[in-house]
Amino acid sequence: MKFDDLLETKKTLINNALNYYLPPAEQYPQDIHRAMRYSVFAGGKRLRPLLVLLATELFTADWKNALSVACSLELIHTYSLIHDDLPAMDNDDYRRGQLTAHKVFGEALAILAGDALLTLAFEILAAEKQDKNGSHSFYHLKASPAIKLKIIWEIANSAGVRGMVGGQAVDLDSEGKTVDLDTLQYIDTHKTGKLLTASVRAGALLGGATPDELARLTAYARLLGRGFQIVDDLLDVEGDPEKMGKTGGQDAQRGKANYVSYFGRAAAKNKRDQLYAQAIAELSSFGDKNLSLQKITRRAFYRNY
Amino acid sequence: MKFDDLLETKKTLINNALNYYLPPAEQYPQDIHRAMRYSVFAGGKRLRPLLVLLATELFTADWKNALSVACSLELIHTYSLIHDDLPAMDNDDYRRGQLTAHKVFGEALAILAGDALLTLAFEILAAEKQDKNGSHSFYHLKASPAIKLKIIWEIANSAGVRGMVGGQAVDLDSEGKTVDLDTLQYIDTHKTGKLLTASVRAGALLGGATPDELARLTAYARLLGRGFQIVDDLLDVEGDPEKMGKTGGQDAQRGKANYVSYFGRAAAKNKRDQLYAQAIAELSSFGDKNLSLQKITRRAFYRNY
Repeated sequence: MKFDDLLETKKTLINNALNYYLPPAEQYPQDIHRAMRYSVFAGGKRLRPLLVLLATELFTADWKNALSVACSLELIHTYSLIHDDLPAMDNDDYRRGQLTAHKVFGEALAILAGDALLTLAFEILAAEKQDKNGSHSFYHLKASPAIKLKIIWEIANSAGVRGMVGGQAVDLDSEGKTVDLDTLQYIDTHKTGKLLTASVRAGALLGGATPDELARLTAYARLLGRGFQIVDDLLDVEGDPEKMGKTGGQDAQRGKANYVSYFGRAAAKNKRDQLYAQAIAELSSFGDKNLSLQKITRRAFYRNY
Repeated sequence: MKFDDLLETKKTLINNALNYYLPPAEQYPQDIHRAMRYSVFAGGKRLRPLLVLLATELFTADWKNALSVACSLELIHTYSLIHDDLPAMDNDDYRRGQLTAHKVFGEALAILAGDALLTLAFEILAAEKQDKNGSHSFYHLKASPAIKLKIIWEIANSAGVRGMVGGQAVDLDSEGKTVDLDTLQYIDTHKTGKLLTASVRAGALLGGATPDELARLTAYARLLGRGFQIVDDLLDVEGDPEKMGKTGGQDAQRGKANYVSYFGRAAAKNKRDQLYAQAIAELSSFGDKNLSLQKITRRAFYRNY
């Protein structure tokens, strides 16, 4: 199968699973269910869930068993975008070319939809059985309770104040200030890097990675996270607004420092290329099995949207 | 020991445990850590964590083992208050006589502090070891991974869109509208009742309750939840603003229906007394061991703040 088809197959399964986990739009109370679904299905790249599935696939053919873990990370990513877009935060009206949740549903419901998505992520990870008649569901995670707890901890730790939320707090505090490189790196390591790393690690934990394999994949994921942020910063100045679904130059407008404003465009691209090479090198010890991760890494580093 | 002293002892341990779980205020990034701590230590009654400890104590003398579960429920309760108080939601400047989080730290940080508290609740429940040197910490939950997962699911399900957040969404939607009794009951069952019920159930699960015992405690907790809400509504019209740390009549001002506006004061008090008697009856099968729960139930139903 071509890599594009392979990714599309996985994305379809991810979307079907998300649809399964989210409460039906027609079920009472409809408004919040609609708000949750609106943002989840607003056209994300599904990078985090794909990383979960591909990391699991390094170790086992049964990557479909990782769908609940994959979806929990997408739910958390989506909640973080909804809250980031709020007027009190980044005050964004559009994301991926669509109105943001608070523009469609109002601020109160957007806050609650974010809260609900974050909570749902942990509910599906801890669920014993997903279907009502008690038989084992395709969408239920088959893993020992001990591994499930490890995955829940990994994700909670990476999403919380020691991870993504902490990075977001520093990011907010940095607007309009001259920040040093340490601060810039703290922000991207936490705000972007932690959840990407948790995605790779959760997939690897589920697949049964050894401590050494887990360490190499963690190093890989951190390089990917840093690279991903530099590419974001590059796209902010030279991306095609049509492809990205948002206007560029937003960081400059907000007085936000980023890698491009700090190093300049050429040096930022150099740094990206270095990080890419290092990330690929970390994957190499996994032999041919790493090809899918290698390809998605190339796309993340050299994307144009 | 007198019941007051017994409760104070437990509250002190709860506060010490919360202090242990929350990131230090002097640790980077300080602002969000301070915002999290500010709201957690703003003088709550600690009803939910006390219910966890007392429910565990019905079954085992080692109620201290339930401290992490107790704290996770208080963290979730606190996050819900921070988000409820936001300008886009109830727009409250004061709670318990103190400025609300967004008045002190700004809206953005208040949103993030709520997100962080919610996430931390699941992190501490899933944590394998709480202290760095790897030895077993007093604050670490000793329970089988399977029981921990049950507790995490119970709490996530009760806090999320099928529980507290769903109730809050309907509550928001009901402002300024004439709501029927079904809607009023949906709101209190979900917004208030679910987390109280999860507190009792989580404690009972940890203590090793049989399915039958769990069912009786669930019935008890639901009666407590309904009663708790009616008392809230009564206090809104006849409470002492000084003792409550907020002005009364807020529901009427917001055009919010409640049990008092629906039934009238006298009938609401009758209903409260009935619910109290039923709740106490559900506890009776636990014999003398239920005395602490009985006493805290009496206080919850006949409190003046």
